[in-house]
Amino acid sequence: MRTGYASEEALSQRFEELVRRARSAVDRALLPADTPPRVIHEAMRYSALAGGKLLRPVLVMAAAECAGGPEAVNDGVECAAAAVELVHTYSLVHDDLPAMDDDDMRRGQPANHVVYGEAIAILAGDALLTRAFEVLATLPERGVEPERAVRVIRELAEAAGTLGLIGGQVDDLAATEGRVDLATLQSIHQRKTGALFRACVRIGGLLGGAGEDDLARLTDYASALGAAFQLVDDILDVVGDTAEMGKRAGSDQRRGKVTIPSLIGLEEARRMAEEETERAVASLSGFGPRADLLRWLVRRILARRR
Amino acid sequence: MRTGYASEEALSQRFEELVRRARSAVDRALLPADTPPRVIHEAMRYSALAGGKLLRPVLVMAAAECAGGPEAVNDGVECAAAAVELVHTYSLVHDDLPAMDDDDMRRGQPANHVVYGEAIAILAGDALLTRAFEVLATLPERGVEPERAVRVIRELAEAAGTLGLIGGQVDDLAATEGRVDLATLQSIHQRKTGALFRACVRIGGLLGGAGEDDLARLTDYASALGAAFQLVDDILDVVGDTAEMGKRAGSDQRRGKVTIPSLIGLEEARRMAEEETERAVASLSGFGPRADLLRWLVRRILARRR
Repeated sequence: MRTGYASEEALSQRFEELVRRARSAVDRALLPADTPPRVIHEAMRYSALAGGKLLRPVLVMAAAECAGGPEAVNDGVECAAAAVELVHTYSLVHDDLPAMDDDDMRRGQPANHVVYGEAIAILAGDALLTRAFEVLATLPERGVEPERAVRVIRELAEAAGTLGLIGGQVDDLAATEGRVDLATLQSIHQRKTGALFRACVRIGGLLGGAGEDDLARLTDYASALGAAFQLVDDILDVVGDTAEMGKRAGSDQRRGKVTIPSLIGLEEARRMAEEETERAVASLSGFGPRADLLRWLVRRILARRR
Repeated sequence: MRTGYASEEALSQRFEELVRRARSAVDRALLPADTPPRVIHEAMRYSALAGGKLLRPVLVMAAAECAGGPEAVNDGVECAAAAVELVHTYSLVHDDLPAMDDDDMRRGQPANHVVYGEAIAILAGDALLTRAFEVLATLPERGVEPERAVRVIRELAEAAGTLGLIGGQVDDLAATEGRVDLATLQSIHQRKTGALFRACVRIGGLLGGAGEDDLARLTDYASALGAAFQLVDDILDVVGDTAEMGKRAGSDQRRGKVTIPSLIGLEEARRMAEEETERAVASLSGFGPRADLLRWLVRRILARRR
């Protein structure tokens, strides 16, 4: 297949470039740490810039590139990419709270509430979520048509809401208590992980100029990618190494958390992850070389070790 | 003074009408209680429709009327009014959490976390905040220009953020621990209470067609109104009756919370509340009869008993 990138190395370099740009965009989207009240701005930065993989903002940028070519990854796209990462970070900060999943480690560091206390961790999550929308409201200043900016805001709010991220977390909390079947677990994952992945590529696509057909194909890609990501995550929780994972391996099991590998076994889970990866790549068949980075990203997820 | 309303009774009737419309708008802004996952939608409705005074959404509508006349209070304004109430409700749900102010009663009912547990209360707050922005993103469908819709979103996000509501709560939490002077306390109130009041009238003004000069006057009005409101709230906490207040009277004192009456005495606090009320009314001097409802509202706040 003809590709837009000369080699695997070129793809890997582009990926690293977008990761750097994503980190810088998140940094710019947050107020300086010494802004009063200092503790809340420090706490927001602690979690948002704490060595996350930045996969979601990179997906926003890669989808914009897929829709409009490398030049489409402009200031507006970077700003939207940062907003998505702020929403993701807020969800991690709140999920880790003692009243929720009660995790004391995240991304290889003590969780936000361990460092700053529960009250500030709740407020830091609230503030990251709020900041995401504040930052998106600057899109028209960055050359995005106001109508498109509103649509981006709506995509993110819907994905983060009770039919997406929050609804998934509600059902996930309940799932630790009773017996859960595969279909329920997949429904939880489609909302808790999948909804934000879908929003990433739809937002990137919208800002890159994609039409409705291309948005639908990008959405299929993201659903499959989200499923693969979650499967690999669950598999790594069983077989992974705590130091590499940044959180405790086996933590799902210890909490009595039902995971896909615990329902269908590791081998079957691995097979499903491969299947979803293929499905993701197949969804991009109409795009040609501009989708090379999106293809590369889903293969990288399948191969990830942390 | 010539007024747009024939009498005190007409003003009171218009107020009651706007309260009814605000309640209906909040109801419409939320998903039905039986939407899965049911518990989160129930929890959101429990707090958002729990007999709040709906002062903030009414302010949005009254400011729209001030800027554009009674006809300006249309579907878009009602939608924005509901969004503001959702943000206010989220802040109450999170503030009441055990890790924060640890209040078990709110608006005469058990607090959200007492009924639904801490995890759902955190998520219900998150969901109310998220829903506010989702709902505002529908403004263009309701006839609001996208550019104006984005500006409304920005006003609300800024007011709710770390330089507004959240920053005020951060400093308020810290203020329970040490000694606090009057200036610090006023700065907390300007953010924790004032920022959202200012956003209400600015959003209403924007949607009603106000220009920058009128927005500035509305902002002055809201700052004074917010200060009066907080003073009366603090005074009622000392002298009020638990049944009328809907939360325990004296709860600030019991928590060792510094309030303005505790710093300067009840009489001086009452005098300040009257002064702020006069300042609020004076800010409206350029508006004529269209501002009658805003004038009436601030006087009502001064007279409130719960």
